[in-house]
Amino acid sequence: MRTLYHLWLSPHSRKVRVVLAEKKLEFMLSVERTWERRPEFLALNPAGEVPVLVEPDGNAYSDSSAICELLEELYPEHPLVGPTPVLRAEVRRLVAWFDCKFNREVTENLVGEKLGKRLIGVGGPDSRAIRAGQANIHLHLDYIQWLVERRRWLAGDFLSLADIAAAAHLSCLDYIGDVPWTDHPGAKDWYARIKSRPSFRSLLRDQVPGALPPRHYEDLDF
Amino acid sequence: MRTLYHLWLSPHSRKVRVVLAEKKLEFMLSVERTWERRPEFLALNPAGEVPVLVEPDGNAYSDSSAICELLEELYPEHPLVGPTPVLRAEVRRLVAWFDCKFNREVTENLVGEKLGKRLIGVGGPDSRAIRAGQANIHLHLDYIQWLVERRRWLAGDFLSLADIAAAAHLSCLDYIGDVPWTDHPGAKDWYARIKSRPSFRSLLRDQVPGALPPRHYEDLDF
Repeated sequence: MRTLYHLWLSPHSRKVRVVLAEKKLEFMLSVERTWERRPEFLALNPAGEVPVLVEPDGNAYSDSSAICELLEELYPEHPLVGPTPVLRAEVRRLVAWFDCKFNREVTENLVGEKLGKRLIGVGGPDSRAIRAGQANIHLHLDYIQWLVERRRWLAGDFLSLADIAAAAHLSCLDYIGDVPWTDHPGAKDWYARIKSRPSFRSLLRDQVPGALPPRHYEDLDF
Repeated sequence: MRTLYHLWLSPHSRKVRVVLAEKKLEFMLSVERTWERRPEFLALNPAGEVPVLVEPDGNAYSDSSAICELLEELYPEHPLVGPTPVLRAEVRRLVAWFDCKFNREVTENLVGEKLGKRLIGVGGPDSRAIRAGQANIHLHLDYIQWLVERRRWLAGDFLSLADIAAAAHLSCLDYIGDVPWTDHPGAKDWYARIKSRPSFRSLLRDQVPGALPPRHYEDLDF
């Protein structure tokens, strides 16, 4: 059986979960407490990070982008990276935007500070980081709005890995009630379209131990 | 003419420079002081980061991995990502290792603190960050050594984007004399092989304004 090692509020793991579901691939989820540095897990991925995907043949793959590109190559039926080299470059640019820039400027400052540190047990949240995250998220939601005013989806007229990466981060922030949706109706409409996809359902059922999500988190009409 | 917007000690820009040279593609270099946030540059890449590649048809591409994947698709003649999906996954895993993990744990702590801050004019280096970078680099050089004891190059028996990404970071660190080569002879042998390639030559001639490299930086027999 295909197994994905993940953590509840790891946006990179969530991206792979949605990609697997969009491609109709069955898989088992296994929570990996990466901070425990389990030797068997480090043997799968010496970086010690989730996600790690173990394919049915036993091969293990890590780094979420490498995993998604592999899945696109092995299972091309529901394509998510785009039909031409130029469009694929745009998808990959936006995936990096969310997985690197948004992650550094928003996700780590909010999800990392508020929940990540508590989960690992390494001190309290840094209020300066939280304020930075709360300021930065507006610029990114504006950018999403700007894109979907010009295109049906973030990278073009097709649902792609770019939408999935962005929505994976926002779903983690939404779990802690930190997305100012009312200020950004265009971004909210786009997120509602992704959120209602069957591939997103398992994310909305996640429950982080000791931290319940706000009522609207699971609600498709939020 | 193809133009690459870059900065001297940006490892991600250096990776693209070496890829362009390995693929025998002609290009012009243009230094972009990203901290000045020039509107014409932000129009090319709203993330405001280098590298940005403008192809001869005028299309602009950003994010170094998106650029390298595009070049691989458009100019497949000197392949750098690997011949099979499984090998490509390994190349991409290692590219992410160096461009994300190594960048965060080593490059930003040393090149960022010692030279980046001075270039932008935002205060002095943080000595704790520098000590962390100096400790972390040993683990990464050990990992390089471990890999090349098992394979000819980092990802397998072929030179790939993984070697180029790793060498791009190490070349920046070598410019400031911060690679403890004598402690890691296996990693040094591997780096010497990359350093002697014609595609690497232009990197070795780089001169950062106000910061000369140590004598061995350009030396192929270092």
